[in-house]
Amino acid sequence: MSFTIRKAKKEDMPKVLSLINQLAHFENEPDAVEVTLQDLENDGFSESPAFFCFVAEINSKIEGIALGYFRYSTWKGKTVHLEDLMVNEAARGTGLGSALLDEIVKFGHELGVKRINWEVLDWNEPAIKFYKQKGATIKEEWRVVHMDEQSIKNYISKL
Amino acid sequence: MSFTIRKAKKEDMPKVLSLINQLAHFENEPDAVEVTLQDLENDGFSESPAFFCFVAEINSKIEGIALGYFRYSTWKGKTVHLEDLMVNEAARGTGLGSALLDEIVKFGHELGVKRINWEVLDWNEPAIKFYKQKGATIKEEWRVVHMDEQSIKNYISKL
Repeated sequence: MSFTIRKAKKEDMPKVLSLINQLAHFENEPDAVEVTLQDLENDGFSESPAFFCFVAEINSKIEGIALGYFRYSTWKGKTVHLEDLMVNEAARGTGLGSALLDEIVKFGHELGVKRINWEVLDWNEPAIKFYKQKGATIKEEWRVVHMDEQSIKNYISKL
Repeated sequence: MSFTIRKAKKEDMPKVLSLINQLAHFENEPDAVEVTLQDLENDGFSESPAFFCFVAEINSKIEGIALGYFRYSTWKGKTVHLEDLMVNEAARGTGLGSALLDEIVKFGHELGVKRINWEVLDWNEPAIKFYKQKGATIKEEWRVVHMDEQSIKNYISKL
């Protein structure tokens, strides 16, 4: 099966949002997506975009996305963060996921970053196996911490 | 004890780097810091800075830092990421850590972000207790994944 990978355009965002929703559903957080189509269109295509995105197409139809942005490690400097790597269910097993990860690694390598980082659910064993095969390391000791919108409000109200 | 918190200036970076090194040492990764003073000065004070930083001073001496940057959640939009919250060992227990976290939460709240995120080591129980008291949640299921510089090179060489 042949596919092409290219940078996402503004007009791809409806399909990108659909894949974001599909991924949130898979991650058991179907109601977590508050981002709107307009947010994606504004945030990704402004003068200083908040994210970058690649799309993978089969027969001119978007079947996968790799969306990321830059972070800053006080150890390694500028890094690439892969926020979402998602392949449409119907297109699994076609090598699209690998090809999208290739694109992200090439992108980071060209920019000379010393690290590419992302996050994975500990029960998503196929993904963990895939990432390890690709040379990534699961940082077992580190935990992700979130202060959500309500907690921020509570925090502020107590100051 | 009285202290002041302010935005970091370029000339604060030597002290900031010293605290970054102190934190890496505490985290059992004393050799992990590849970032140089020049990197910090360039990356944090360019036209589009890669990070922001607050410093806490006691008697005009920097005793703590909170350094962060923006991320982009495909669920919540723009978020604030707290990369390093560090208080000089001699100034622990003075409330400086709390005051620096206050500053980050205020900063995020003023910008209207729906999430503030950071990472913590699972054995750093005092930090975890502190963050939970402040209303943050440890995302137990999520794992941090890194592809380091050598793995990026290996990956590229196999393409």
